[in-house]
Amino acid sequence: MRVQIINTGTELLLGDVLNTHAQFIARQIFPIGLRVERQVTVPDGDAIRAALIEAFARADIVFTTGGLGPTTDDITCEVTAELLGLEFHHDAEVMRAIEARAAARAFRLTDRIPRQAQVPYGATVLPNAFGTAPGLYLPAKINLRVASPHLFLLPGPPRELRPIFTEHVLPLLRKIVPEQSGRASRYYKIAGIGESHVEEAIGDRLLAIPGLELGYCAGAGEVVVRVTTDPPSLEIADAIIQQRFADAIFAIDQTTSLEEVVVRLMTEQGSTIAVAESCTGGLLANRLTNVPGASTVFVAGYVTYSNEAKSDVLHVPPELIEREGAVSKAVAAAMAEGARSRAGATFGIGITGIAGPTGGTDDKPLGTVFIALAANGERTVVLRERFPSDRVTFKQLTTQTALEMLRRLIRDLHR
Amino acid sequence: MRVQIINTGTELLLGDVLNTHAQFIARQIFPIGLRVERQVTVPDGDAIRAALIEAFARADIVFTTGGLGPTTDDITCEVTAELLGLEFHHDAEVMRAIEARAAARAFRLTDRIPRQAQVPYGATVLPNAFGTAPGLYLPAKINLRVASPHLFLLPGPPRELRPIFTEHVLPLLRKIVPEQSGRASRYYKIAGIGESHVEEAIGDRLLAIPGLELGYCAGAGEVVVRVTTDPPSLEIADAIIQQRFADAIFAIDQTTSLEEVVVRLMTEQGSTIAVAESCTGGLLANRLTNVPGASTVFVAGYVTYSNEAKSDVLHVPPELIEREGAVSKAVAAAMAEGARSRAGATFGIGITGIAGPTGGTDDKPLGTVFIALAANGERTVVLRERFPSDRVTFKQLTTQTALEMLRRLIRDLHR
Repeated sequence: MRVQIINTGTELLLGDVLNTHAQFIARQIFPIGLRVERQVTVPDGDAIRAALIEAFARADIVFTTGGLGPTTDDITCEVTAELLGLEFHHDAEVMRAIEARAAARAFRLTDRIPRQAQVPYGATVLPNAFGTAPGLYLPAKINLRVASPHLFLLPGPPRELRPIFTEHVLPLLRKIVPEQSGRASRYYKIAGIGESHVEEAIGDRLLAIPGLELGYCAGAGEVVVRVTTDPPSLEIADAIIQQRFADAIFAIDQTTSLEEVVVRLMTEQGSTIAVAESCTGGLLANRLTNVPGASTVFVAGYVTYSNEAKSDVLHVPPELIEREGAVSKAVAAAMAEGARSRAGATFGIGITGIAGPTGGTDDKPLGTVFIALAANGERTVVLRERFPSDRVTFKQLTTQTALEMLRRLIRDLHR
Repeated sequence: MRVQIINTGTELLLGDVLNTHAQFIARQIFPIGLRVERQVTVPDGDAIRAALIEAFARADIVFTTGGLGPTTDDITCEVTAELLGLEFHHDAEVMRAIEARAAARAFRLTDRIPRQAQVPYGATVLPNAFGTAPGLYLPAKINLRVASPHLFLLPGPPRELRPIFTEHVLPLLRKIVPEQSGRASRYYKIAGIGESHVEEAIGDRLLAIPGLELGYCAGAGEVVVRVTTDPPSLEIADAIIQQRFADAIFAIDQTTSLEEVVVRLMTEQGSTIAVAESCTGGLLANRLTNVPGASTVFVAGYVTYSNEAKSDVLHVPPELIEREGAVSKAVAAAMAEGARSRAGATFGIGITGIAGPTGGTDDKPLGTVFIALAANGERTVVLRERFPSDRVTFKQLTTQTALEMLRRLIRDLHR
């Protein structure tokens, strides 16, 4: 089936906002055998009409994003209904959801918000748990006199669109899309190895399998390998990948994050963690506590930016900082051990480094970082790394490395 | 002039790679008065032909990205030349650059690479310092018998496209584009007020200004208002917006974050901060320390997830937690004061709440949060809020609110 995405939004065309919808939707629909044939971005307002007419002619499934809000330039739903010759009705359930949302968050309904409870006849409402505008599904040929594809009208903010997509759009798509032709995909998330090294190690052997399709997607400190083929070949490919990267694969799917894996492993094993961060400034604690249920394993985090805070809270001896420098193997280890013992946790992580943009030396250039991992009854391990990049990427790569150290230790301790 | 972007690349449509070209190009051309009217992504191969034909009909300037490489599916240049009726010649200078690059990096030229030295007659080569495929500029009506727009063919990898764009494309565009018609844009970033309330308050008055263009972009806990018009009208619009939202505007540009504003204000005033976080799990510390130079103002962060950690590190009395509950006004205040005094900082922030997905009660439903702000010599202020959303959005909205409380206090203290 031919799939098309129409993104609407002047803010996308002005570059005010990065368009992440196309990637998100493509990844979501891939496992059910769909791929996007064409993606187009048009401004708010009348251009949506031309884009819809074009899409009607050459797609079986169309996703639109944006233009469902309460403001005057939000006309996606009106234009669609007009093209399809559909009338609107007031949907009492949508209105109740809007009112409940307004009451819970103590905001006043403006005059324009009730417009969002106007629903075209025949459309299925896709409830929006994080905003007032619901998504809408209009089945193919919703009006028998008009040739139209399956239409999904989705709100523009990613935090609204994404849950609607996974909870409501995917189940509908599984009904619409015929069973797959016997091809399947598998994803491998690999930590700490660069994309080109992964490709060099396994690319040729995998592509020697007839009909196999291979994709790589590099993130900060991780690579996702995608393999698509018939099920028997998938097992051959699996053996090749596992043989080479078994140690570094932390998830065999597309979406599980490294922090989710770590929190799950620790929950299963009843262990706990405390972290002491300098240059990563709380990102490690933040990533761990993004995982629902983290409170079972995460005891405390200490963001000790100043030397005084390192000594005060983590009992890092001032003379050690003086002698070795705040960015040193010894201080990282003392931070990890201090965090662990202060919080009474099974594991402690200590991170100290130079995130930049200033502060590098010949000996310890910009991007240098020490990551220490202390475990109850084990010798503290310290890794020295260098990630010369912008501040945000540096923090991401450093915390990714720390999480992977922790994952491997937990796994090894329980083998 | 009408501008269109054609992105080619199967990897973009599969979601393996995020398309950042459209945003990059839009931001680059905005200052010279151009805006993108339409952006389309098509797969490698023949779909590029249809996209080019469409674009020829409705654009004055077209940028293509991708499809200039050495592999068989890289056909952007061939298809373009064919549509325009142009022959190729071998460009000795491009070939020399390719050979020099191969020699410097010790890679072997494959048989297909010299293809990249084939240039259509009349095209201007845009040298590529970071890859073998140069960009190409084909002026409007390069073949007088074909109506064609200005065409810029650019390579797909961002690290190659971006330098070509800034160094070679922008100077050419400045010659092509007539002097600006005297329109300018201004951006206002507003914290803590919903998009529809902003529109209700100022939308009608602003749109009453003839020729004024208005855009809104909502983020988590902030709205960006964009106003585009001639300079005198811009000042009238400015007065309307300032009169209504002076207190809530934290930046008059497109990119400054609230944490950047807070760190700058504190740096100017020589004040410092320590934060104590429970449900936000380190995000507030992380946001503050994302700002280069944060080490001057950020002393320490305490992520006290467990009750024991709250008492141990922040000296919150266990009986207070017992009596009021960990999620309470009193505990938030004690956390803020504990963080401030422990770190010896000017300001302390304490955050405790229920991020979910579980843990809500009738009295304190999911999403309830208390945010306390303690200041040296001032009475501690505690705000009760409710953000019923997913964990990540909850953390974002809560920290945004905390930063805005801090920004207003700093501003008021120094008035």
